[in-house]
Amino acid sequence: MAEARLIGVDWGTTSFRAALMDGGGEVLDQMAGKDGLLSVVDRDFEGVLERTIGRWDPASALPVIASGMVTSRTGWRETAYLPCPAGADELAGALTQLTTAKGRRIAFVTGLSYRHDDGSPDVMRGEETQIAGLALAGTRLAVMPGTHSKWVRVEDGRITAFRSAMTGDAFAALKDHTVLKLTTSDWTTSPEAFAAGVAVGAADGGAGLLGKLFRQRAGSLMGDFPANQTAERLSGLLIGAEIAEGRSFAPAVGGPVVIVGGEALAARYAAALDVLGIPHETAPANAAFAGQFRIARAAGLVR
Amino acid sequence: MAEARLIGVDWGTTSFRAALMDGGGEVLDQMAGKDGLLSVVDRDFEGVLERTIGRWDPASALPVIASGMVTSRTGWRETAYLPCPAGADELAGALTQLTTAKGRRIAFVTGLSYRHDDGSPDVMRGEETQIAGLALAGTRLAVMPGTHSKWVRVEDGRITAFRSAMTGDAFAALKDHTVLKLTTSDWTTSPEAFAAGVAVGAADGGAGLLGKLFRQRAGSLMGDFPANQTAERLSGLLIGAEIAEGRSFAPAVGGPVVIVGGEALAARYAAALDVLGIPHETAPANAAFAGQFRIARAAGLVR
Repeated sequence: MAEARLIGVDWGTTSFRAALMDGGGEVLDQMAGKDGLLSVVDRDFEGVLERTIGRWDPASALPVIASGMVTSRTGWRETAYLPCPAGADELAGALTQLTTAKGRRIAFVTGLSYRHDDGSPDVMRGEETQIAGLALAGTRLAVMPGTHSKWVRVEDGRITAFRSAMTGDAFAALKDHTVLKLTTSDWTTSPEAFAAGVAVGAADGGAGLLGKLFRQRAGSLMGDFPANQTAERLSGLLIGAEIAEGRSFAPAVGGPVVIVGGEALAARYAAALDVLGIPHETAPANAAFAGQFRIARAAGLVR
Repeated sequence: MAEARLIGVDWGTTSFRAALMDGGGEVLDQMAGKDGLLSVVDRDFEGVLERTIGRWDPASALPVIASGMVTSRTGWRETAYLPCPAGADELAGALTQLTTAKGRRIAFVTGLSYRHDDGSPDVMRGEETQIAGLALAGTRLAVMPGTHSKWVRVEDGRITAFRSAMTGDAFAALKDHTVLKLTTSDWTTSPEAFAAGVAVGAADGGAGLLGKLFRQRAGSLMGDFPANQTAERLSGLLIGAEIAEGRSFAPAVGGPVVIVGGEALAARYAAALDVLGIPHETAPANAAFAGQFRIARAAGLVR
């Protein structure tokens, strides 16, 4: 077995993943758990970290590199956003170092900020590390679906611009806390209903969303579709709108859109892009660890 | 005192309003309470009605005309939507009559449906009666703000087309059940923040809403505006988007937009329309009773 040289920690609001890596970035062992930042009591982040990764490295000898919401206001160590453009080298230069009382060295990868043409700001934490791990060549557009989806313009591996969309977060809120809740609780899987929602959501460049939302209620009241298709239609509606927004954000980027995300969500976005005739490909999973390794090497943490 | 000839009941999901009217439609007495449809136990709609309006007419001699969600699936008597175009005469022709065991005669005003150009349906219940009460001359565009706002095209008093927007419903859900809840609970009144939100929401014809929503979080994280302005900005954002959607729905309608709604909400929409430079005027309140009288007279319920 190759010698362990680095521990990567991808620490999110509701998830905790870690990998033990060798000097070439190969993952020797990994773990995933529910020790998300929200579950940490009394800010005992160090305790959680040692309880999880400690068995790999009881002597605290290996450097740790951590990314994700762990550097947000509610995380362990808040770090300032780094402005775009940024790739592994810029992220390596912006690492925040911490040494615990036990002597464990932790390097925190910070998130990125971007200013849109109208001056409004956008932010990400964690996605920058995944993009660094993909090492995309040329100019590409990546979509990273989720609670707050990201559409990311990547040029030779560096993020030059990005745009967030509150898709997953808004979906959950609208599904469970508006009049749509009357019909979304009976969620019946239907690729056709999802596709119909995508087409409606993307129509008119994604405009008219507040009206389209109401018509998901009107449609079931008028018998245009079964009430139990409402959840699928709503999901499609929002993803379709997001795609229309994302495409208008970066229309000139060539090549298939790169989908970066978990299996189920990636499949959903692939289906939506198919509905709209937009070429796409799916990136390998677990890009976060590859990104962490690349950043750690650029910073000289592993040799 | 003029003789009472008609009782109008405007019965919504969370509100109950009633008026005692004379043979010319003048309101002799009125009441407003919290006996909304949701509060009715065991479907005892008749019991609630008699407990409220009974004192005006213990003998059950006066005809009652009822409008609002009382004709919806969760109301007293579900009635089919009447397709547009429709005004007081068509609504009078579509009344559903009921006589209670006590001998009280009740006429229910049904709601309207409309098919958009893309075939998708829209519905209203209650607003058609308010519009009938306004007796607008010529071709006008009315906005009726609320949980499910309506933009209504009126031609010589008849509704020829309309479009709903899930503005109020979505606002409450997004404010309290997304990441924005971290900053919306501390709601500080700010006309400037509201106006800024309106401008952003209406930009690009209301498109890009999922991105604009996220940037209400990013903006406070980046210090672009104080966190306690988020609720006002979100309110403005959604109302601005709704106005852009509504204007694209009926761009050719001349004359000021007629705002039909309660005082506080009407003032908010007036402010938003001012931000966007759209002429507007505010309709008199309580148009529902005037509409009920007009429909009742057209149906021969009062002479």
